[in-house]
Amino acid sequence: MRRAHRIAAITKTLVEQPHHVFAVGDFATLFDVARSTLSEDLAIIRSTFERLEMGRVETISGAVGGVRYMPYFTRKQSLEHVEAVCNRLREPERILPGGFIYTDDLISSPQILRNVGQIFATEFQKQDPEYVVTVETAGIPVALQTANALDVPLVVVRRQSRPTEGPVLTMNFLSGSARHVETMSLSRRALARNSRVLLVDDFMKAGGTLRGLSDLMGEFECSVVGKGVFIETGWPEEKLISDHLPLIYLQEVDTVAQKVVVSPADWILT
Amino acid sequence: MRRAHRIAAITKTLVEQPHHVFAVGDFATLFDVARSTLSEDLAIIRSTFERLEMGRVETISGAVGGVRYMPYFTRKQSLEHVEAVCNRLREPERILPGGFIYTDDLISSPQILRNVGQIFATEFQKQDPEYVVTVETAGIPVALQTANALDVPLVVVRRQSRPTEGPVLTMNFLSGSARHVETMSLSRRALARNSRVLLVDDFMKAGGTLRGLSDLMGEFECSVVGKGVFIETGWPEEKLISDHLPLIYLQEVDTVAQKVVVSPADWILT
Repeated sequence: MRRAHRIAAITKTLVEQPHHVFAVGDFATLFDVARSTLSEDLAIIRSTFERLEMGRVETISGAVGGVRYMPYFTRKQSLEHVEAVCNRLREPERILPGGFIYTDDLISSPQILRNVGQIFATEFQKQDPEYVVTVETAGIPVALQTANALDVPLVVVRRQSRPTEGPVLTMNFLSGSARHVETMSLSRRALARNSRVLLVDDFMKAGGTLRGLSDLMGEFECSVVGKGVFIETGWPEEKLISDHLPLIYLQEVDTVAQKVVVSPADWILT
Repeated sequence: MRRAHRIAAITKTLVEQPHHVFAVGDFATLFDVARSTLSEDLAIIRSTFERLEMGRVETISGAVGGVRYMPYFTRKQSLEHVEAVCNRLREPERILPGGFIYTDDLISSPQILRNVGQIFATEFQKQDPEYVVTVETAGIPVALQTANALDVPLVVVRRQSRPTEGPVLTMNFLSGSARHVETMSLSRRALARNSRVLLVDDFMKAGGTLRGLSDLMGEFECSVVGKGVFIETGWPEEKLISDHLPLIYLQEVDTVAQKVVVSPADWILT
């Protein structure tokens, strides 16, 4: 197999499983070439991705030697993707009675989900999370694409437990916006003790759910290394958590003027 | 940019968005090369993927001219992936009281989900589905990875409706195994009329949920072009649907002998 063929095969393998470390030796054996030749192949892929801002290819030196692809968006790329979603959110036909806004089609789009997952992966990969954790239902697609981009398992906390989960840990928490008590539960075997977890949710008002999730992680003796939120609302002003990373600020839904006031989160704009 | 670099960039773009048609001319402009040169690049990617059984690259001729990557597993590859999951399911520590079996960790693994999504994409892409539809909660990850592999939106039917969905269509259906009435609801704007939909769920006993989903699709004037099931149980023997595609048969969970009897579905074995 010639270089161009090898590069097609290696690129596919790396990109399809982001963050997964592949042994360089395995590629060398597969293509029956010297390791030095393969290192040149990888250098070409790495420099191409770097030049076209397509993410990062990282080679890990040492006895075994590995290579992995890590999704990485520049701030400008993240902003472009977030702006595109903001434009969609501004469509007046999304406004529902009571100042709600229809977002189901956005968190259904493979392309939007992939981009959001890669933005969160870009921002949180330094924290090296071992799980992505979310609560059912609407947060699952965004959380799964983040887990995918980081190559870690997705853990879904339930509102109600099911017999197929085995022993569960159930916890009450205070919904910050609605001011009522809700329940979440998670199988005892879902998380290994002392793990680093990244919390991801699609929507945050006061942050009661994320606060509850954080407390639940404490019960599992896990540490929360990041909290990603797709859309945060401007109301209520007082939030129950502070150290989260929203992508989009939904400041106001004006049902009279039929206007949605929405913008990328500050950190993306700077 | 030399050929090897172009191939790295094109392969990444194609693989990251399966089924999406990219204009060949756009690649030619991006790299500032003649279309004929680019056709040679694509031929190299195509032949490499073919030779290594890494899926298909399809070029679409015509005035515009397009190219896309389509995940494709050989029967042998599908069987290998399904066998690997069966081996995990046989672990006796999965057995829960009441003959239930713990599967949450399997439908949490990015790698397993990706493979299952690609198997369903392989089997159903001929039907050209426009949406993948599932019902909350456990089916969502499998369904999303199928939607991803097919580049179509994922639609999640709810057990209960929420104010953020706008007007919904609610339907009662008979749960086949538990023999009680359940409810499902879906936003009126979730599906365009006359669409082709692929139903995907993680677990099927009698098939009441899939039967209900099929009926619901009828209410939306959509046609069901396929039904994919990750795990089907051997009980009850009588099923409410017949034309579905399971990947795994869970024949028996023997709580006394602590044995899980499980195998790949017949069609994969032939």
